Amino acid sequence: MSYFDMASAAPLHPVARQALVAALDEGWADPARLYREGRRARLLLDAAREAAAEEVGCRPDELAFTPSGTRALHSAVAGAAAGRRRTGRHVVLSAVEHSAVLHAAEPFDTTEVAVDRAGRVDAGRFAAALRPDTALACLQSANHEVGTLQPVAEVADACRAAGVPLLVDAAQSLTWGPVAGDWSLLAGSAHKWGGPPGVGLLVVRKGTRFAPQEPADERESGRAPGFENLPAIVAAAASLRAVRDGAAAEAARLSALVDVIRTRVPQLVPDVEVVGHERLRLPHLVTFSCLYVDGEALLSGLDRAGFSVSSGSSCTSSTLTPSHVLKAMGVLSEGNVRVSLPPGTAAEDVERFLAALPRVVADVRAHMGADAVPGLNTPADGGTSAAAAVSDATATEPGAELVVDSLGKRCPIPVIELARVIGEVPLGGLVTVLSDDEAARLDIPAWCTMRDQEYVGERPAERGTAYVVRRRV
Amino acid sequence: MSYFDMASAAPLHPVARQALVAALDEGWADPARLYREGRRARLLLDAAREAAAEEVGCRPDELAFTPSGTRALHSAVAGAAAGRRRTGRHVVLSAVEHSAVLHAAEPFDTTEVAVDRAGRVDAGRFAAALRPDTALACLQSANHEVGTLQPVAEVADACRAAGVPLLVDAAQSLTWGPVAGDWSLLAGSAHKWGGPPGVGLLVVRKGTRFAPQEPADERESGRAPGFENLPAIVAAAASLRAVRDGAAAEAARLSALVDVIRTRVPQLVPDVEVVGHERLRLPHLVTFSCLYVDGEALLSGLDRAGFSVSSGSSCTSSTLTPSHVLKAMGVLSEGNVRVSLPPGTAAEDVERFLAALPRVVADVRAHMGADAVPGLNTPADGGTSAAAAVSDATATEPGAELVVDSLGKRCPIPVIELARVIGEVPLGGLVTVLSDDEAARLDIPAWCTMRDQEYVGERPAERGTAYVVRRRV
Repeated sequence: MSYFDMASAAPLHPVARQALVAALDEGWADPARLYREGRRARLLLDAAREAAAEEVGCRPDELAFTPSGTRALHSAVAGAAAGRRRTGRHVVLSAVEHSAVLHAAEPFDTTEVAVDRAGRVDAGRFAAALRPDTALACLQSANHEVGTLQPVAEVADACRAAGVPLLVDAAQSLTWGPVAGDWSLLAGSAHKWGGPPGVGLLVVRKGTRFAPQEPADERESGRAPGFENLPAIVAAAASLRAVRDGAAAEAARLSALVDVIRTRVPQLVPDVEVVGHERLRLPHLVTFSCLYVDGEALLSGLDRAGFSVSSGSSCTSSTLTPSHVLKAMGVLSEGNVRVSLPPGTAAEDVERFLAALPRVVADVRAHMGADAVPGLNTPADGGTSAAAAVSDATATEPGAELVVDSLGKRCPIPVIELARVIGEVPLGGLVTVLSDDEAARLDIPAWCTMRDQEYVGERPAERGTAYVVRRRV
Repeated sequence: MSYFDMASAAPLHPVARQALVAALDEGWADPARLYREGRRARLLLDAAREAAAEEVGCRPDELAFTPSGTRALHSAVAGAAAGRRRTGRHVVLSAVEHSAVLHAAEPFDTTEVAVDRAGRVDAGRFAAALRPDTALACLQSANHEVGTLQPVAEVADACRAAGVPLLVDAAQSLTWGPVAGDWSLLAGSAHKWGGPPGVGLLVVRKGTRFAPQEPADERESGRAPGFENLPAIVAAAASLRAVRDGAAAEAARLSALVDVIRTRVPQLVPDVEVVGHERLRLPHLVTFSCLYVDGEALLSGLDRAGFSVSSGSSCTSSTLTPSHVLKAMGVLSEGNVRVSLPPGTAAEDVERFLAALPRVVADVRAHMGADAVPGLNTPADGGTSAAAAVSDATATEPGAELVVDSLGKRCPIPVIELARVIGEVPLGGLVTVLSDDEAARLDIPAWCTMRDQEYVGERPAERGTAYVVRRRV
């Protein structure tokens, strides 16, 4: 079994395990107490804070341990915005922030800064969004779904110049090093770097106005209510230190493996889009999307083949909407796969993945009926085509326009049906796809880009939306 | 070393340790993921939820795991009050709730129901505080500082009748059994029952209106944002089950040891008040206060003698105010000691504690200058009297009234100075103590009760407050 989902959670680092087990005996008491068990716990807590602060690049008294990265982000957004409530209620953030940031910012007047097709914000564009009433700006160090690095240092400078504090969500990058730049607040999550779950970091630089919004509590400088999760905190700090040791070399090694995946997947699998920035990216993470593929079926095929990966496809989430990150980038969301390699991943495991992937994708496509799509390199055996049945396409004006009724059908069926009928209209002819699946809004234009067809636009239909495509090739 | 502070944190139960270590290997992945590591984590999470729910006495889907008992209480108060915001913003709670409840209720219009000298609310009085605009009522199952059990079942019935949900803070009692009665919400904390820190319980009964106030998050039914602290959750559930096994027998055994402490401490140490209810109490917890004793010095003396206990005295807290619980009960706060015996405490350890206590108290009293207090049974060697120096008492009207200037002096000095001069006025004469220490407001009346003197009252003075006492004996 190869676990390639480090961006969700890393397996516990051996150092973390060792530290955690040791701290269970030494660190269960209340560090606020004056007796010896309490003093011992306090020493452990102080040492962990110093170690973590050193790796983050801040003062120990600027760092609070929270119960998770999510809670750190929630507290950071609420506390920093409240600290500047006299300035205003405007929050600037990138369109590809983690949902924890987006949800925490919901009560405010927000400006989402768009990203390019690689998922990166433009620093100048971000700076231009700052206003006199901007209380807070938020920018991740690296995107959690596609690995693209953000221009944090430049944005931090722009924020300083405007007098706006910048919160950096560093959850995905702390494994590899501290976040450069003159940021004001930072959040992290231990289980992303091989620490145990239950520990996040909230850093508030001296001089940053901060008004905690949780009920009053004396622990963690009033920034993280509740009894400290001490054994896990000790383990989190120890593992951060451990992964940083040799992080540069491991980053280079994994980055080369990711390059192999980025290059070879499009060679091995037809109709694939590798997404995210080619160079300005996390060393260990790569994301790609496969046309005509149901994300859930793909994950489950890869799981059966022995690979644990993640997906931003709508059909794998309970919300039935595609990842907001892929949406903001304007890239294909169907058949989406995120591969994030834990430190120590062997080159052979990546080779095995590349060897297994084409068959898994082909099987899913065959099962979806995508083997009937002209020009698609389908597997020799054809597979069983559960959804291959009948095309609902109807030539309303013969030779000129086709209407495909995909109402009630979920991603990737609308795109598959579009692909199957496009050849039935002449060059310059139109295909209109009726769909009520949210993913179609993203995937039909993305398909057009990938297949050199013209996306004309969408209009509301009696039910769902009509997406119009003009045949160009 | 004897650790007698289970009410703060219990040492990790061996079953919890075992479960935690096992779950580190099996339960680090994201339980929301579909691959095998995720499915394995989900199974562990589901099993832990079922086990915990069974011990609590609720349905598994009513129980969410939170990062701590404090966070469970915060979420419970905010979510339940918001769920009934159309009813009103009134919250009824006992005056002796945990500070996490009191702080969470601060944004609301609150009615604090008074307690008797034993720390117990009267169910009828609690019911009478419910109003048509009451959104929520809060009552602990047992008090964390004095161990007094509250009439939860009766109050729950009254709340049901009034259509008001009752939140029970069960942090101190879950070790011993489920909370009886028809409550609507319940909170607990794993590290109080021998589980690891980092895990709380939030139970919301079906049919209870609840609107989570944290930013949206899919985990734990939207009631506890952030990645689940799974290894700790597994350990928490396992240890709750383990401590419940044989809890009744252990409760009886510890309760007998507590009875020994309750009876013998006043025999062994002069001028001690044992506080909390004699019968309606937690089995393992007893609290007493010692006149003329500095709480911090007492804790540190007991620590040196090998006993880890806690205190609600103002001089051991950073806030310089005495415990709000002792204040609400109207009992002495100085020299306060809370003894809470972990399961398995040996009778010999309690005997050793009783053997050591008199000398430790006597030493602190001697050090405070209390050996000069008439009628106090001081140790034979007298000790060194750092604060014994001079009495600031001045006879303004000879033989009739004395004014003691204790301004700038901290608990227990004002009471010691009062005790030293009371004999200098005739029967019926007055002593006025000038003090700016918050504890004096509680401790001077309490001293009067204990020493059969008459507490006349207080009035504002030029600096601080003037407390007036009439000599009766």
